Amino acid sequence: MAVAARRSEQSDTTEPVLVTAALAKKAAELRYDDLSAEARTVVGHCFMDFFGVTLAARNEPLANILAEQIAEDGGAPQATVIGRGTRANIEQTALLNGAMSHALDFDDVNFNMGGHPTVPIAPAVLALAEHRKLDGKRLVEAFAAGFETECRIGRLVGRTHYQRGWHTTATVGAIGAAAAASNMLRLDAATTAHALGIAATQAAGLKSVFGTMCKPLHPGRAAAIGLQAARLAQRGFTSNPAILDVEQGFTATQSEDPRPDAALADPPGGWFLPQTLFKYHAACYLTHSSIEASSMLRREFALQVDAIRKVTLSVDEGHLRVCNIEKPQTGLEVKFSLRATNALALLGENTASDATYSDKTAKRGEVVDLCSKFEIATWKKPSHTLSEVAVHLNDGRVVRKEFDVGIPMTDLVAQGASLQQKFLGLAEPAIGADRAGKVAEVSGKLDGVKDVGELMALIATAG
Amino acid sequence: MAVAARRSEQSDTTEPVLVTAALAKKAAELRYDDLSAEARTVVGHCFMDFFGVTLAARNEPLANILAEQIAEDGGAPQATVIGRGTRANIEQTALLNGAMSHALDFDDVNFNMGGHPTVPIAPAVLALAEHRKLDGKRLVEAFAAGFETECRIGRLVGRTHYQRGWHTTATVGAIGAAAAASNMLRLDAATTAHALGIAATQAAGLKSVFGTMCKPLHPGRAAAIGLQAARLAQRGFTSNPAILDVEQGFTATQSEDPRPDAALADPPGGWFLPQTLFKYHAACYLTHSSIEASSMLRREFALQVDAIRKVTLSVDEGHLRVCNIEKPQTGLEVKFSLRATNALALLGENTASDATYSDKTAKRGEVVDLCSKFEIATWKKPSHTLSEVAVHLNDGRVVRKEFDVGIPMTDLVAQGASLQQKFLGLAEPAIGADRAGKVAEVSGKLDGVKDVGELMALIATAG
Repeated sequence: MAVAARRSEQSDTTEPVLVTAALAKKAAELRYDDLSAEARTVVGHCFMDFFGVTLAARNEPLANILAEQIAEDGGAPQATVIGRGTRANIEQTALLNGAMSHALDFDDVNFNMGGHPTVPIAPAVLALAEHRKLDGKRLVEAFAAGFETECRIGRLVGRTHYQRGWHTTATVGAIGAAAAASNMLRLDAATTAHALGIAATQAAGLKSVFGTMCKPLHPGRAAAIGLQAARLAQRGFTSNPAILDVEQGFTATQSEDPRPDAALADPPGGWFLPQTLFKYHAACYLTHSSIEASSMLRREFALQVDAIRKVTLSVDEGHLRVCNIEKPQTGLEVKFSLRATNALALLGENTASDATYSDKTAKRGEVVDLCSKFEIATWKKPSHTLSEVAVHLNDGRVVRKEFDVGIPMTDLVAQGASLQQKFLGLAEPAIGADRAGKVAEVSGKLDGVKDVGELMALIATAG
Repeated sequence: MAVAARRSEQSDTTEPVLVTAALAKKAAELRYDDLSAEARTVVGHCFMDFFGVTLAARNEPLANILAEQIAEDGGAPQATVIGRGTRANIEQTALLNGAMSHALDFDDVNFNMGGHPTVPIAPAVLALAEHRKLDGKRLVEAFAAGFETECRIGRLVGRTHYQRGWHTTATVGAIGAAAAASNMLRLDAATTAHALGIAATQAAGLKSVFGTMCKPLHPGRAAAIGLQAARLAQRGFTSNPAILDVEQGFTATQSEDPRPDAALADPPGGWFLPQTLFKYHAACYLTHSSIEASSMLRREFALQVDAIRKVTLSVDEGHLRVCNIEKPQTGLEVKFSLRATNALALLGENTASDATYSDKTAKRGEVVDLCSKFEIATWKKPSHTLSEVAVHLNDGRVVRKEFDVGIPMTDLVAQGASLQQKFLGLAEPAIGADRAGKVAEVSGKLDGVKDVGELMALIATAG
């Protein structure tokens, strides 16, 4: 914290750049045309994924509670609450959409940020763009501004922030949302720095509430804080415009190992967006690598279940304590069973859909039979998320595949296809195949959207 | 943090009491009849003082910005925005009234809390009581529940919380506001514990924004968080109900020296309320002790300025760097002049009113003449806020008086009289002598208020 702090009251140009000012400038100046093709593609992936996981959570208990309270509070009907057929003002909308979107814990991750990057930002920029009748390019660039800011602040505060007890998605997310909203409101760099300061002094969220409704509340609140901060800054509201640098600022109070240099360094290719990881399966995260490997084996070798003699999974030892239920009896237990989830993958079931993980599935004959052919082995690898599936066939062949969901995909076409499958599984039960297909299509070409409100109309109501 | 944390997952009755559960129970169960006469009296003082400092700040720039944004957001007209002739929903109202009330930094202090205790709570309970048409006793008991909770949490987190960079008024204030609102909503102890958890995970505020509009924003946001948290908890929203005790909870993340025992110990007389300090003078806090001494000398000895030969002020050496402007030329400089402020006190001027500190005052002949008779001496005392005024009279007599504004007044009748003078100075320019007099009267007998809305009607509009 000292490095940044000592620079705080100086503007001498021989001094290192202040992080807050540098990030504010980047966020304020980012335009659609600056983004690489990969970055733009991933923004589309982030939005499609956001729409799916939000629609799937539209009737979660926490959504009902928040919606009831918002209805009591009243507010201008400025923006679309996803899947609930109601409208609310932009802050309320961002709060509720953000909370729903994190309710299933099925949303994307970026290791630079050290949290879930999309959920605090997307609800903020969607609500604001809809209210101001902005187009898809404005949506993409504002989202990217917030996203990249989050990743840089995540690198600034480092792992100690999360380790000490803060929920990075909430805290860093609020500042990222302010950067996104500032870009969308066309605030200049100096005003954006105040917006970051207004958000940072309100940014909060403790990991000790994980497992309660407050976890998903966090990113909703972060989105609302970001919107409020940018709008206040636009009206001349002041904060400390060097909040990430100064003594007793955000970084100094909430990081034990600040890394200004890491925050300012550019990633390969210029953008953090392509380093985003997505969750494709509505099961324990530690089952995901082997599920991917099983799915690939099934496709590549056109595996038939009858032809399988034995399946060996090699996983990090830590998995055994988390997701190694041998004979799952319920849908929930299936989610924490390496055997059952991989049996489903080998059977070609939709592991992205929550509905797949039913009690009925747990008891289905072919699932139970296949589970009995599994062996779980442990190995030590540098990446604990690396897993291997070896399928031993009746004809004597053994086919193997490794996968590591901790490594971002470089094949963005494949990523898009996987995400579309996930999205459709989540969205079709809510809005039907027709509208779901349209949303997927629009997410792939957001630059063609004339008015974000038209996109939101597709997901406003659900069955 | 370790002591509390290790207890967190146990409910064995031989274990020490969990702080969160204990404070939730106290807050939930507190009733008007439990309060001592002194505590009730001080609650009235807190409210009168709150009304005065809020009315005086009704047109501050930050109030205008927040009001504009709230108008854009829309909301049910549930409660009274003080002095602005508008209504908003209870959270918006609490935010705006709270921000205005701290804008002049002229509100009360309690060393147990380590911050300003009234400003995060009063706006929350006033808005909620008005909306629910509750009476004065409900207002007083809910306020007291929040106030005592704040003081206990302030003792729990200790001085390291503020020292590390958190604005206690904002952070501890949000949890106190949740306790107050929980009491008013008649939540049981278990539900109140969730409300404290919902508030604590959103509690935020950094000292590094002092000097900007975010400082007063903090307690406004704290009040809004508290209201939201209690209402969400009432609807079944969950958080960690041991947020003050658990590993990586509020205390663990934001205190380096937690004191559960200090939080649970009862103060002499049973209540922290009578230990509240009020600011009576619209000048630098370090001038207050000597101003009090000068005023007392003037009254006690019926001092006439003509009879004064010399005045010696004895103060802590630290005062010299803060408020020792020898020949103030402007109203602002008068505020930082021991000589001028004490001259005004000896002349019997209203040092509570901001209007007294004008450029005209700085240049007034009798003020300048009297200033020239002052000598400033330094002394070392255990309390740095202790000051002495010695007035040397032409007839050879020397009259002396010490005062320490860091010690709560035990004469609550005198305290009420001083506060009423301050209040009228602040309120009369806003709402006229008639209504100001009524507000002062009602504040002195809140138990007689049938509907808090009637009280709010007296301060809804201002000239």
